[in-house]
Amino acid sequence: MGSTAVNSDYGATRELSALQKERALYRPELPPTNLRSLPTFGRAESPGSIGSAPPRHMPCPIPCHSALISPAGSILSTGWGTAVRVEYGDATIAADGADAHVIGNAFPHTYGQPLAHFLPEAANAADAAIITEHPVVRVGVVFSGRQSPGGHNVIWGLHDALSAHNPSSKLIGFLGGTDGLFAQKTLEITEEVLSSYKNQGGYDMIGRTRDQIRTTEQVKAAMTTCQTLMLDALVIIGGVTSNTDAAQLAETFAESKCSTKIVGVPVTLNGDLKNQFVETTVGFDTICKVNSQLISNICTDALSAEKYYYFIRLMGRKASHVALECALESHPNMVILGEEVAASKLTISDITKQICDAVQARAENDKYHGVMLIPEGLVESIPELYALLQEIHGLHDKGVSVESISSHLSPWASALFNFLPQFIRKQLLLHPESDDSAQLSQIEIEKLLAQLVETEINKRLEEGTYKGKKFNAICHFFGYQARGALPSKFDCDYAYVLGHVCYHILAAGLNGYMATVTNLKNHLVRWKCGAAPITSMMTVKGWSRGPAATQIGKPAVHMASVDLKGKAYELLRQNSSSFLMEDIYKNPGPLQFEGPGAEAKPISLCVEDRDYMGRIKQLQEYLEKVKCIVKPGCSQDVLKAALSAMAHVIELLTIMSSPSYSGQAATI
Amino acid sequence: MGSTAVNSDYGATRELSALQKERALYRPELPPTNLRSLPTFGRAESPGSIGSAPPRHMPCPIPCHSALISPAGSILSTGWGTAVRVEYGDATIAADGADAHVIGNAFPHTYGQPLAHFLPEAANAADAAIITEHPVVRVGVVFSGRQSPGGHNVIWGLHDALSAHNPSSKLIGFLGGTDGLFAQKTLEITEEVLSSYKNQGGYDMIGRTRDQIRTTEQVKAAMTTCQTLMLDALVIIGGVTSNTDAAQLAETFAESKCSTKIVGVPVTLNGDLKNQFVETTVGFDTICKVNSQLISNICTDALSAEKYYYFIRLMGRKASHVALECALESHPNMVILGEEVAASKLTISDITKQICDAVQARAENDKYHGVMLIPEGLVESIPELYALLQEIHGLHDKGVSVESISSHLSPWASALFNFLPQFIRKQLLLHPESDDSAQLSQIEIEKLLAQLVETEINKRLEEGTYKGKKFNAICHFFGYQARGALPSKFDCDYAYVLGHVCYHILAAGLNGYMATVTNLKNHLVRWKCGAAPITSMMTVKGWSRGPAATQIGKPAVHMASVDLKGKAYELLRQNSSSFLMEDIYKNPGPLQFEGPGAEAKPISLCVEDRDYMGRIKQLQEYLEKVKCIVKPGCSQDVLKAALSAMAHVIELLTIMSSPSYSGQAATI
Repeated sequence: MGSTAVNSDYGATRELSALQKERALYRPELPPTNLRSLPTFGRAESPGSIGSAPPRHMPCPIPCHSALISPAGSILSTGWGTAVRVEYGDATIAADGADAHVIGNAFPHTYGQPLAHFLPEAANAADAAIITEHPVVRVGVVFSGRQSPGGHNVIWGLHDALSAHNPSSKLIGFLGGTDGLFAQKTLEITEEVLSSYKNQGGYDMIGRTRDQIRTTEQVKAAMTTCQTLMLDALVIIGGVTSNTDAAQLAETFAESKCSTKIVGVPVTLNGDLKNQFVETTVGFDTICKVNSQLISNICTDALSAEKYYYFIRLMGRKASHVALECALESHPNMVILGEEVAASKLTISDITKQICDAVQARAENDKYHGVMLIPEGLVESIPELYALLQEIHGLHDKGVSVESISSHLSPWASALFNFLPQFIRKQLLLHPESDDSAQLSQIEIEKLLAQLVETEINKRLEEGTYKGKKFNAICHFFGYQARGALPSKFDCDYAYVLGHVCYHILAAGLNGYMATVTNLKNHLVRWKCGAAPITSMMTVKGWSRGPAATQIGKPAVHMASVDLKGKAYELLRQNSSSFLMEDIYKNPGPLQFEGPGAEAKPISLCVEDRDYMGRIKQLQEYLEKVKCIVKPGCSQDVLKAALSAMAHVIELLTIMSSPSYSGQAATI
Repeated sequence: MGSTAVNSDYGATRELSALQKERALYRPELPPTNLRSLPTFGRAESPGSIGSAPPRHMPCPIPCHSALISPAGSILSTGWGTAVRVEYGDATIAADGADAHVIGNAFPHTYGQPLAHFLPEAANAADAAIITEHPVVRVGVVFSGRQSPGGHNVIWGLHDALSAHNPSSKLIGFLGGTDGLFAQKTLEITEEVLSSYKNQGGYDMIGRTRDQIRTTEQVKAAMTTCQTLMLDALVIIGGVTSNTDAAQLAETFAESKCSTKIVGVPVTLNGDLKNQFVETTVGFDTICKVNSQLISNICTDALSAEKYYYFIRLMGRKASHVALECALESHPNMVILGEEVAASKLTISDITKQICDAVQARAENDKYHGVMLIPEGLVESIPELYALLQEIHGLHDKGVSVESISSHLSPWASALFNFLPQFIRKQLLLHPESDDSAQLSQIEIEKLLAQLVETEINKRLEEGTYKGKKFNAICHFFGYQARGALPSKFDCDYAYVLGHVCYHILAAGLNGYMATVTNLKNHLVRWKCGAAPITSMMTVKGWSRGPAATQIGKPAVHMASVDLKGKAYELLRQNSSSFLMEDIYKNPGPLQFEGPGAEAKPISLCVEDRDYMGRIKQLQEYLEKVKCIVKPGCSQDVLKAALSAMAHVIELLTIMSSPSYSGQAATI
């Protein structure tokens, strides 16, 4: 859609099905953080540290300099809405110390800001800033990036928080995504507009489009819009690239003294925006549940008919989070994670052989059916296909026409290209996406594998090494049919709470932060709300190529791969041989909103040790305790013990934090 | 799977998900018919009419000749289980009078048997036979044909009914479908075997394979199995072809004085086993709900991204019942029913033009997204593609190799073939299925249409008649991912009740009957259980070709097409223009087992006037009432009025029943 053509139906109330109506009436709870019961007045200024990074490794100055922030602990009891209680942690640093300098240089105004924890009412608030005045604010919100179930609830949560704190505040949605942001196409988000979109899938309330805020023109247009509409904050809902853009926008705004604060929200079905601060993204749970339902149905079908191998490709971009989670939920016979393939540098013929061996082993047990999961990103994880794609994309950049690319390939790439079947050659020749990745949703890698396996099995049959029956494959691609799904209870809750957190961030005057909710694997009452500077999630990669070549070394929030040392992967590996041979398929069934399974969370979320932010906070408490114990006046022995113990700790941590150590770890 | 290779995991108890466990605990209710509260004894012999058709248009002799059948109304109160109360209707005739002679000749022992109604406890049982003795019986059961959600519950219902009436009775499942029947591969169905398959999808408890009981060898093998295992009855669970086979088996058994009774059960996801006695089939509801969930998700996705047209092909064989029901449930922009195309003789270019006009009309409203449903059977409804397929299949029959078929085509067929894209040529060349139809699941007609539409839109763009943006299509095939789904509550209930009805049929000693439950659109307590001779559902078609040419004129249960004069289709037509232009997408959501929507039934079932069997019974009651009123001794005027009125009725019905009338009706 061009920026001039805007769907006139945006925000229209619409006819809902019985279930949709029931869902629209569901209201997620809030963790105790949100202090909904406390009436307040008074106005918080932005913390003084915004716009200038606090010294590293030092506690962040608590922003308590303004008369409008009431003294910690004393809550005033008149006025609109509720108080926001924020406690700041240490200044943040990049996860990889080696990148810190580059990121700090690129984001002088927004790097190194402290973590923010939003505290529950009952918490010891000695260090907390309490924001009690909530003036009228104007907030913009935009969907940036592919739709993900639950996105609407972020807007709903934000709207509820805004009107709870000051009913005169305005929430302005940008229509048709970032195009609407640049062109100032808006729709005021009201209770009426929201009514038929609460807990509903899709992004159709305000729409989205191709999604970036990156070029100078785009950034300038966004700033003009924010200034023209006098926005106090702009909330950007999206994945890794959208949040990178958000961080860049925050930096530019800070530099240009534009007063609009930028807030990012982690919403992407791929589940690849994942780091120490972000445990999972909105939509991932729903996508995995819908896909697992379908995969399980296919498993049951396979076991009933006993004659087909199903090769199922799963949407999820480069990382294999969706495939891993779906495998843990539905127990298919095999899943080929891109991260495994990349780590072991498996070639296309290695993978074919692995699958053929599996088919053969099953045939020896009289089994001629099976289900294989293949992440769409696999094609870029296979070394020779990745190299071929890089050559093709390079030729695209040079302006070589699609028709003549094949004749410009290097001899080996040309040999590989000609070895591949016709249908996939055409797909590999497609123009890359704006982030330089191949058009993963268009490349039918599952069909390629099925075809290669069939050829190999037929060869083995002729040679007499395979003695089973004919191999029959059926291929599927699951993605679009899950993307618009009604969000799961978990995604509804998570997104709604994130929406509230956005308000807390802007009330605290923070810029360039992402809303976070951690400890998610526990019950909602134990969820912890906070915010982390987006810059603290950035890394610098040196290997970009092609159209992004100009961006080499540019810091960004990069997608997280599946952690091959993580517990979720370990769980898969422990079970992979019984998955392969024993057909212990499990059907989680269709997503339920009541009864058993309605409260289920992603398995990969639940098995991992998370709550990084909580543990960071705990460390702070330990350090404080040491100070309390080792006060002037304590015994010589206590001091001696403390010094000795801490010296060890320092030595240990210094070694572990050194670049050489992390280098070694990576090669283990 | 060959008949010697049987999955050793059949009937294994297995690990279930939380939702599967909950579902396994669900117990469908029974309509009052089943007299579960009445203890009985005594033994029913087979009705005397079995094996010799009762005179037509005469009430069927009530099988009351045996001392073991207690006098109507008096229920004896000791012994195992409960009584079965059966009332016989008139002898059945073929729906098309012209076929009656052919069917009667082909099925001398089983044509013309009466309808059977199984009565509720409270019913006036004056005419009913009450079967009170329930000796030990041995019953076989086999899945025949493609898996359909709910199939397991037929077996469960049958097992429950068997053990309720005599716990020593045995239920024997054949493993791996009809192959297991021929090879006597069996598994005794026990409560333990059933425990993890209750209300679960798939056919994996005992499996299935390629499915026919048709050749002389197959029929002979089936008979040997039934005699060797001393089966009192064999229950065949399947669709139109399986039930045709069941009728043939019943006839052969009756002729050969094999005492095993054959019972058919209408289970097929296609919904195409539909006639005056069968309102819908087990599995259809689930399939439509799962597909509608996915279609709606795609609709939401389309509306969020606003840049793709989704072309979704739906599994469902030749008829378009699934596509019609899904359209009514999810409101996509367009659905192309095979029956419409066949009735209007639309060519591939007509259909392309229609879709292009729709795309163009939407572009004029700034809409560049949409969702189109395409039944997989469409390819055989398009006249020129059907003719091309017939030529190809004819060449297959002549033994022409796949590689050289294209060079043997007639000039026009060759021209069409060469006009079509490469991928679909390959698919059209596939060997036809055993019923002479094309391999519908393999022919990507949705891709063909998407490609033709793209070409035509590009042409219009060049000519300047289309002024919109680029047309982008994404294609899907939905089928396998629904087939193994957890069955809906409706399918669980319907299948379980049908299982019970099977017992009633065999207790009544009926042979060649299909179990029926009617009045399904009403609450379960008003469902009516009965049985109809499979021969009464048969028709004779003269147009078979190819490998089935020997079967020309052979009676069979044929698949029912979507009724273009029916109310479901009318409902679609009334809404089709708002569906097309207004994007009134509706998301029924994932199949729920609790809360709103859990009780929903197929819309196409609910809008049609059904309960044919109930209405047939009502007519009988009217006729009885006339007799009661016009008794000897009534006034001259009453007799005169009755004679005059009845003369009119007779004249009217005679005209309407004449072959010439039905011929006219067909051409209207």
